[in-house]
Amino acid sequence: MVFHYQRLRHFTIDIFKKIGCPEADAQTAATALLSADLRGIDSHGIARLIGYVRLQEAGRANPNPHLRIIHETPSTAVVDGDGGLGLVVAPFAMQIAIAKAELCGTGWVSVQNSNHFGIAGYHALQAVKKDMIGIAMTNASALVAPTFSLERLLGTNPICVAVPAGTEPHFVADLATTTAANGKLEILQRKNQEAPEGWIQDKNGQPSTNPHELKTGGALLPLGGDRDHGSHKGYALGAIVDIFSAILSGANYGPWVPPFPAYVPMPTGMPGKGIGHFFGAMRIDAFRPAAEFKEHMDNWIRRFRNATPVPGHDKVLIPGDPEREMEAERLAHGIPLVAPVVQELKELAIKLGVEFPQPLSLPSQNE
Amino acid sequence: MVFHYQRLRHFTIDIFKKIGCPEADAQTAATALLSADLRGIDSHGIARLIGYVRLQEAGRANPNPHLRIIHETPSTAVVDGDGGLGLVVAPFAMQIAIAKAELCGTGWVSVQNSNHFGIAGYHALQAVKKDMIGIAMTNASALVAPTFSLERLLGTNPICVAVPAGTEPHFVADLATTTAANGKLEILQRKNQEAPEGWIQDKNGQPSTNPHELKTGGALLPLGGDRDHGSHKGYALGAIVDIFSAILSGANYGPWVPPFPAYVPMPTGMPGKGIGHFFGAMRIDAFRPAAEFKEHMDNWIRRFRNATPVPGHDKVLIPGDPEREMEAERLAHGIPLVAPVVQELKELAIKLGVEFPQPLSLPSQNE
Repeated sequence: MVFHYQRLRHFTIDIFKKIGCPEADAQTAATALLSADLRGIDSHGIARLIGYVRLQEAGRANPNPHLRIIHETPSTAVVDGDGGLGLVVAPFAMQIAIAKAELCGTGWVSVQNSNHFGIAGYHALQAVKKDMIGIAMTNASALVAPTFSLERLLGTNPICVAVPAGTEPHFVADLATTTAANGKLEILQRKNQEAPEGWIQDKNGQPSTNPHELKTGGALLPLGGDRDHGSHKGYALGAIVDIFSAILSGANYGPWVPPFPAYVPMPTGMPGKGIGHFFGAMRIDAFRPAAEFKEHMDNWIRRFRNATPVPGHDKVLIPGDPEREMEAERLAHGIPLVAPVVQELKELAIKLGVEFPQPLSLPSQNE
Repeated sequence: MVFHYQRLRHFTIDIFKKIGCPEADAQTAATALLSADLRGIDSHGIARLIGYVRLQEAGRANPNPHLRIIHETPSTAVVDGDGGLGLVVAPFAMQIAIAKAELCGTGWVSVQNSNHFGIAGYHALQAVKKDMIGIAMTNASALVAPTFSLERLLGTNPICVAVPAGTEPHFVADLATTTAANGKLEILQRKNQEAPEGWIQDKNGQPSTNPHELKTGGALLPLGGDRDHGSHKGYALGAIVDIFSAILSGANYGPWVPPFPAYVPMPTGMPGKGIGHFFGAMRIDAFRPAAEFKEHMDNWIRRFRNATPVPGHDKVLIPGDPEREMEAERLAHGIPLVAPVVQELKELAIKLGVEFPQPLSLPSQNE
């Protein structure tokens, strides 16, 4: 079933208000959450709404947090998210990074005591609107085994870097530091398909293609897959995200990051507060005139887009191309949701006394 | 043959002085260059000395550059390297990043008009000495084909992030954004061994295991190897390095980055000046007290190092472990050089009228 973006957004705002979010926070959270559906990252969008509600119900997320800066310098800050939804904490922190960049060229904000923030891309793109390069990253609960480790010690720890261009669309690289994000695994699970080698190891640390492996002690693998193919680099990148997000801020790190599903017990001996994020904003004209930068960025984009492709492939993509095309398509024609997600959202709507929106159409009817 | 570090360093200083470097610059360049040999990155160390000499002879490297800041804000600067050796330009730029971090929390410097700077790790580690996180990256001439591209458009574009710890050794992640660095390919070429799949494509864009493929139009592959294994992420990371190093600074980017070998013709239609680097320094106590940070960093390192390993592997490594162990070993017992490199250096010594050092011993003699 396909739903109009604005109708899903209003529904999401209503749900966030029902769990205690102030109006402005509910709007912020809904916009951040739905940006994932618009950009085609379905695993991180409205399908997770019930997960956020359960975190609030379990007392693991504070719907009305007092967000504050606990330490700062002209170009840095640490934000205490007060246990709030990452969907609200992250936009607050990103605005601080942007404000600092306006004053002294760049701004860098590390965040403690937060929760999951949706997709990194949404937050990084806030800087692009101000002619800045935006950077966003977050740690997450441990699903990934470092190279040679039997244990899961890192999250999928995504990094996004968004760069403004001139007449070309922005460059937006938004990537989990694993071979494949967990969302892709969920798709294979639903379809009962095998994963390519290099995505997963089993509970004995051996390569596996079974997408259900994580339920029985297996792990996702860092970008690279195995040592011969550079998994130590993916591991290092995930580690950098963990350090910037949590050791700079005072959040939990490594195996102690709180899980998203509210039914999973919290880790014991947690060394910090909540989960951690890290944001950066660099004003383009802190380096060179923005118009000059954008002209060269356009030149870069065109050169790469027009590269001779490998036979059998249409063209070379610029990071962000697929998500941008998806966003245009879904804003125009709606957001498709799979039946189990619709069912779950309908039950949530009844439970919280909120009206669930009508679908636009059934895609098979071709209205 | 094995050589004492200090003897090789003095030899290297003499060579740099012979090609016109002032004494202080020659010392800076030699220390930066030899740090690669100490850390076991043999492809980027003294084996490249003759390459730097040839760049100077060809008029492509300026041995006595006037280094200067051409634009700055409290937390940023752009440095013009005046065509100097990257081994001299990079330390200058990194010191500016550190000075800015001292004043306003972080410092970020993009560099134009430079040359190859050796290993990224050396430069990032300068910040660690000041209780800062150090970041260093550089673009390089195009050897890497982006995902789906037949053309080589990116260099191996390394990223280093170095993080201070307390009683544990530093965390130093220094990685080319390709599956395997070019140095590893050179080793396979010398030994006439096959490369693993996922490192290289041939001139038709098909997977290859022939390490000589780059001589006939083949390319290195971005970290991930192919699309199924996340090569679009390695491509995006290499692109970010290119943009930060060159589009922010006004250096050349993509296929227009000047080659290291002086016999390779310069690209036509170059849009910038020289090659580009990017450096960052973040003062730890711009986020939280350094002692607190280091305590948690130690905890992080110990938890990862003590993780249960996959059967058949000793332990989980911390990024920087192998290079640090190598450095201790080589400082104590000398730096081994392969015969062709020794031969080349001896010829260079004769040509420039510099004394070549005596080896410590032949390793096979077990003195």
